[in-house]
Amino acid sequence: MKTINIGLIGFGTVGSGLAEVLLSQKERLVQRSGLTLRLAKVADIMISELPPQFADTELTNDAKALINDPEIDIVVELIGGIEPAKTFVMDAIAAGKHVVTANKALLSQEGKEIFAAAAVQGVEVGFEASVGGGIPLIKSLKEGLVANRIQSIMGIMNGTANYILTRMTDEGVPFDEVLKDAQKLGFAEADPTYDVEGIDTAHKLAILMTIAYGMNITHNEIATEGITEVEPVDIEFAREFGCCIKLLAISRNHGDHVEARVHPTMVPHSHMLASISGAYNGIHFSGDMVGNVLLYGLGAGKLPTGSAVAADIMDIARNISSGSVGRVPSLSYLSEEIKEIGITPMEELSCPWYFRITARDEPGVLAAIAGILSKHKISIESVMQKGRQEGGPVSIVLTTHTAGESDIHAALGEINALDMVSAPTVKIRMLDEGDEADS
Amino acid sequence: MKTINIGLIGFGTVGSGLAEVLLSQKERLVQRSGLTLRLAKVADIMISELPPQFADTELTNDAKALINDPEIDIVVELIGGIEPAKTFVMDAIAAGKHVVTANKALLSQEGKEIFAAAAVQGVEVGFEASVGGGIPLIKSLKEGLVANRIQSIMGIMNGTANYILTRMTDEGVPFDEVLKDAQKLGFAEADPTYDVEGIDTAHKLAILMTIAYGMNITHNEIATEGITEVEPVDIEFAREFGCCIKLLAISRNHGDHVEARVHPTMVPHSHMLASISGAYNGIHFSGDMVGNVLLYGLGAGKLPTGSAVAADIMDIARNISSGSVGRVPSLSYLSEEIKEIGITPMEELSCPWYFRITARDEPGVLAAIAGILSKHKISIESVMQKGRQEGGPVSIVLTTHTAGESDIHAALGEINALDMVSAPTVKIRMLDEGDEADS
Repeated sequence: MKTINIGLIGFGTVGSGLAEVLLSQKERLVQRSGLTLRLAKVADIMISELPPQFADTELTNDAKALINDPEIDIVVELIGGIEPAKTFVMDAIAAGKHVVTANKALLSQEGKEIFAAAAVQGVEVGFEASVGGGIPLIKSLKEGLVANRIQSIMGIMNGTANYILTRMTDEGVPFDEVLKDAQKLGFAEADPTYDVEGIDTAHKLAILMTIAYGMNITHNEIATEGITEVEPVDIEFAREFGCCIKLLAISRNHGDHVEARVHPTMVPHSHMLASISGAYNGIHFSGDMVGNVLLYGLGAGKLPTGSAVAADIMDIARNISSGSVGRVPSLSYLSEEIKEIGITPMEELSCPWYFRITARDEPGVLAAIAGILSKHKISIESVMQKGRQEGGPVSIVLTTHTAGESDIHAALGEINALDMVSAPTVKIRMLDEGDEADS
Repeated sequence: MKTINIGLIGFGTVGSGLAEVLLSQKERLVQRSGLTLRLAKVADIMISELPPQFADTELTNDAKALINDPEIDIVVELIGGIEPAKTFVMDAIAAGKHVVTANKALLSQEGKEIFAAAAVQGVEVGFEASVGGGIPLIKSLKEGLVANRIQSIMGIMNGTANYILTRMTDEGVPFDEVLKDAQKLGFAEADPTYDVEGIDTAHKLAILMTIAYGMNITHNEIATEGITEVEPVDIEFAREFGCCIKLLAISRNHGDHVEARVHPTMVPHSHMLASISGAYNGIHFSGDMVGNVLLYGLGAGKLPTGSAVAADIMDIARNISSGSVGRVPSLSYLSEEIKEIGITPMEELSCPWYFRITARDEPGVLAAIAGILSKHKISIESVMQKGRQEGGPVSIVLTTHTAGESDIHAALGEINALDMVSAPTVKIRMLDEGDEADS
């Protein structure tokens, strides 16, 4: 029986999860492939020994030695971040090793260089675990939906943000309070910036867009807003409109340009994405042949992510064993077919909007607001006055029909400048009717 | 550039859909593989010519000639049913051709013989389109979740039945009426037996169990109940319990035996499967490493199914081109690893239940019923009396905690024999709490 030797760099949460998956599924993987996936070496500078069940695996603190070990077929990078991960990945490729990584920050920033080097060396780069944890997303896009023009990608791609929003929704407590508790429970990291500011979601959207559309894109080209300013009161009003608030990645393929954005979004309860709670992820694709497809599962975690890394390893192992390396292009399109496609400027986008305007409860305030919106050709869909009390401020909660970003910004500038308006207006984008009908 | 020649048997809905997919995605498929998938020949006895856009494809009424044409690399069987489909598939395999089929009836009944013949001939059999239409289910199970013991399969696998139940739920109209309308609208066939009696769902569950568990099973080993007896009043009461009624395929892997059943099921609104409406399918897997995964999309239709067939063709074409035929075992486990595993007898299963008992509104009726249930160790979770009116019958609607099938049957026999009970009791299984917590 053929043995494929694996060198793992990084024995943290996901790394030790992968080791556990390979150990517990060893027999099954043989039954499904005739191949033995052997964790030959682990490189980690933080630990002095491996747990006893990995007695057959050698531990080193020298990742370079692991990379250059001629016995190793596949190098798995699970340390995260840009450096030294990038150096390790590039060195492994240069040494003719196949690479598997879960590093979405690295791929969404440095992917172009990494995949170009891999193409030159004729090695594979697997990255199923970089988006959606254990959900077989990347394989589905690259192979299952191969005969489709992907028209849109829409999804909940960050379990931490979704967990926080779900608890804010269920318990009515503010962001800061839930975040603190999530950190205590291990659902959020000590520095939650990437998760709550939408940056991690943008990393993942960039990777999905690359393979779905066959284009070059880095995450910093994606307009990104996080969830730190979402307030329980807006979640409550959203419910009155039949919606919940989710941090969505949204991209649409217009052929010669593509939309790409990450922001809190009001999602109608009837939409599948509204049902995705807690630490779960759900990613919705629309293909011109297949229609709507949604894939759902745990977007993070030791064993789910380990499961996806193991699937990539098995895929490459099968290719090594059957002499078919490069059988499916790493980025789904042949490298010479990958295009430069422009990103639609954010100010050209339009969608329906939710506003919460804080104003003095005076006659004429609604007339003034409606006048400004009308001047900017923004059509009101519904309006409610909330929290009326003698002399105090009132919340004017309104939703609009589809309106352009630049009109919205101009109108809100004028509204916020009104004497009667006593606090900056809160605005949240809503999924438009087309999206709703899709599901 | 390498060309793979395809021979298609059957130019009906799915066959013409595949032709359309291959034509419209031709350039994309080249960009993603460097391969040309050429629809060389179509065999169909019902048509005299192909639509003009397929001028480069030869039409024949002789499937055997197509199968034996040395130019053809892959034979696609899309006529459905057992014969002559089985003969065509077996002949194609004998002629050394790879086969792609969407024929769930054939595979769930004759799969063992077909896959054994393919193994002997060293050819591939692709069947992504046999379950869940365009959803990349089979590939996800075989490859994406390769490093998992699949612990359960649970899903909505028949779009017609789900469409009918969804309309009964939304509109409160009876089964017969919705069925007639669904037939008019093309959502149900003239003979809807397979769809509404759960047989089609059992076909699909058998296929999924085969590849998920690595076992032999035919659809007639699966206990199957359809939706023809579901009444609007039960849907209404289900809603009061926070549930909807879905036709589910349910299987659990107990290692030395496996559960397998298809029946109408009360699903809590909080469960992802409750959100799957209309003609959509949703299939939920639980894996020991990945946790819960759900895949959702259109389970039927010309282009979605064509998309799945095209993905199978591309998979085989890549293997032909890279010399890696047999790279992934057709049934996910190596043929020598496929086991005989017993099916749990239905009478050994247990779940919570819903009953609607029709009784005369007399003192003591509830006491009598409760006494019988208690005698059979069935614990009541909730009970409501509905529709009280002078002298008329009353509906006693109750739900139980988990109870065994044989206890339930014994108890219902006694309840139905009570003088006060004036119509056979309606019983519907409910998803148990474990299933609910899963999602």
